[in-house]
Amino acid sequence: MKGEILRALRESGDYVSGESLSKELGTSRVSIWKHIHRLEQDGYTVEASPKGYRLLSSPDLLIPCEFPGLEQRIHHFREIGSTMDAARKLAEGGVEQGTIIVAESQSHGRGRLSKEWLSPEGGIYFTVVLRPKISPIYAPRMNLMASVAVATTIRRLFGLKAELKWPNDVLIEGRKVCGILAEMHAEVDAVHFINLGIGVNANAYVSQQEKKATSLKEQLGREVCRKEFFRSVLMELQERQALLTKADLVEEWKSLSATLNRDVRIVAPGEEIIGQAVDIDSGGALIIKGKDGSLRTAIAGDCIHLT
Amino acid sequence: MKGEILRALRESGDYVSGESLSKELGTSRVSIWKHIHRLEQDGYTVEASPKGYRLLSSPDLLIPCEFPGLEQRIHHFREIGSTMDAARKLAEGGVEQGTIIVAESQSHGRGRLSKEWLSPEGGIYFTVVLRPKISPIYAPRMNLMASVAVATTIRRLFGLKAELKWPNDVLIEGRKVCGILAEMHAEVDAVHFINLGIGVNANAYVSQQEKKATSLKEQLGREVCRKEFFRSVLMELQERQALLTKADLVEEWKSLSATLNRDVRIVAPGEEIIGQAVDIDSGGALIIKGKDGSLRTAIAGDCIHLT
Repeated sequence: MKGEILRALRESGDYVSGESLSKELGTSRVSIWKHIHRLEQDGYTVEASPKGYRLLSSPDLLIPCEFPGLEQRIHHFREIGSTMDAARKLAEGGVEQGTIIVAESQSHGRGRLSKEWLSPEGGIYFTVVLRPKISPIYAPRMNLMASVAVATTIRRLFGLKAELKWPNDVLIEGRKVCGILAEMHAEVDAVHFINLGIGVNANAYVSQQEKKATSLKEQLGREVCRKEFFRSVLMELQERQALLTKADLVEEWKSLSATLNRDVRIVAPGEEIIGQAVDIDSGGALIIKGKDGSLRTAIAGDCIHLT
Repeated sequence: MKGEILRALRESGDYVSGESLSKELGTSRVSIWKHIHRLEQDGYTVEASPKGYRLLSSPDLLIPCEFPGLEQRIHHFREIGSTMDAARKLAEGGVEQGTIIVAESQSHGRGRLSKEWLSPEGGIYFTVVLRPKISPIYAPRMNLMASVAVATTIRRLFGLKAELKWPNDVLIEGRKVCGILAEMHAEVDAVHFINLGIGVNANAYVSQQEKKATSLKEQLGREVCRKEFFRSVLMELQERQALLTKADLVEEWKSLSATLNRDVRIVAPGEEIIGQAVDIDSGGALIIKGKDGSLRTAIAGDCIHLT
């Protein structure tokens, strides 16, 4: 109902009387008034005058009614422990492909390899439940897809030169603006679900001590519209889902890469690889050329750019 | 304590007095008597005479104290819903590599692709929690490893010609004696855990109506020792875990295959492939040659032998 009232106010762009809202939506004027009040609690500014209601401003929150067409799929939280944990429970319970869990902040945000992901207000933290009909052997490409979608959005909306650090960080001027975590539940030859988590330091405060991190706000010197960013990333993801098993995705990743042709150190459980990053293979693994000319392949791990 | 009493009785092979047991194990004679009573409830036959206690027989149950060295790792249930479900909870809770959940029967045994797995008493139903340091791209090989371990055990212990049907059924004379289900939780580039479930129609009743199924008992005309079988499969699995990323495993699977060189129909979500099975690739995918000579690759699905 809140969403329908919002839509009516937006379509009008002017005053809409409580009476016409109540007729259009088939509910009482008291009920309309209650929902307007709830919208105000959500952060909307609604002028109420004898001429009716008029929408003055909307909050930059990632709430379902701000995303017409996606309302049913979005589960929004002001604060949550971790969107990944919530998504896992929902996915195990059978929610459909494309369900999104988004939070304004996370108290226990999780990153790759059991690391913490700081998630203060102002950032964008969400997990999409995907049920691709693919073998787990294509799963590592999920990282490529997500990082390409985020970098493309940053370039398109803000003209910033977002680049990709293998396997799945998005950097601006060498500093991390977005992290990606994809978790999978699968039979060994068939994926049940992949939960794709994306955390973006959009308007979130990034400590000057953290020289490795940056935010869109810091880069631009102004706040960005989180809603616009979120909508764009979802669209870019949507467009690339059919490409998961296709070579185009790998080419797109390469064209945005900050890692290729650099000297790197890869730290993985039980091994360390140092050399020049020369390519990624079709599975998203990084190919590294050692000083002796030998080639080695890194499937997972932390990547440090040495040059 | 039950395990220690059993060990003492077995090592002696003769009467052991309650007094010496109580001294050796540092507990009271009343406590010894209580544990002997519990052993009897578990199905052990213990003679109690003025000369002491003597072990006459052990039940063919897959209880931890029958597997010295593995006691701490085995969680045994007389009946359970599904060892896969129990294993998932334990694995998510962090149990270590090699933890085993085994049940005498399952009320909701699960097979591949959401099928039911009938699990009456007499069969062997267990799940091993594995935490291999591999990428999910090697996960499909888990199926190869498990089916090879079971077929090798059947051949070695009973001289029956067990063969493998792609991707992971074990057949005797074309009928299924064992099913395998492997479920994985992973970051897309690093496995958290793979739960490997194995169900064997050892002494379980197999309806004559089920022409596609058989049991070891039916094939041999006698009951088998389930404990011996279980121990052997665990050993064969153990030996092959280091091979997960090695070519030897694929070669071993091929040497036991009933599928290669046969005409097959592969039924997968949204597609059907018919042709001659000519090979499996390093990832365990089946390569099928169509009538026109073209090669196609099946990653998952049901395989029907047409010839």
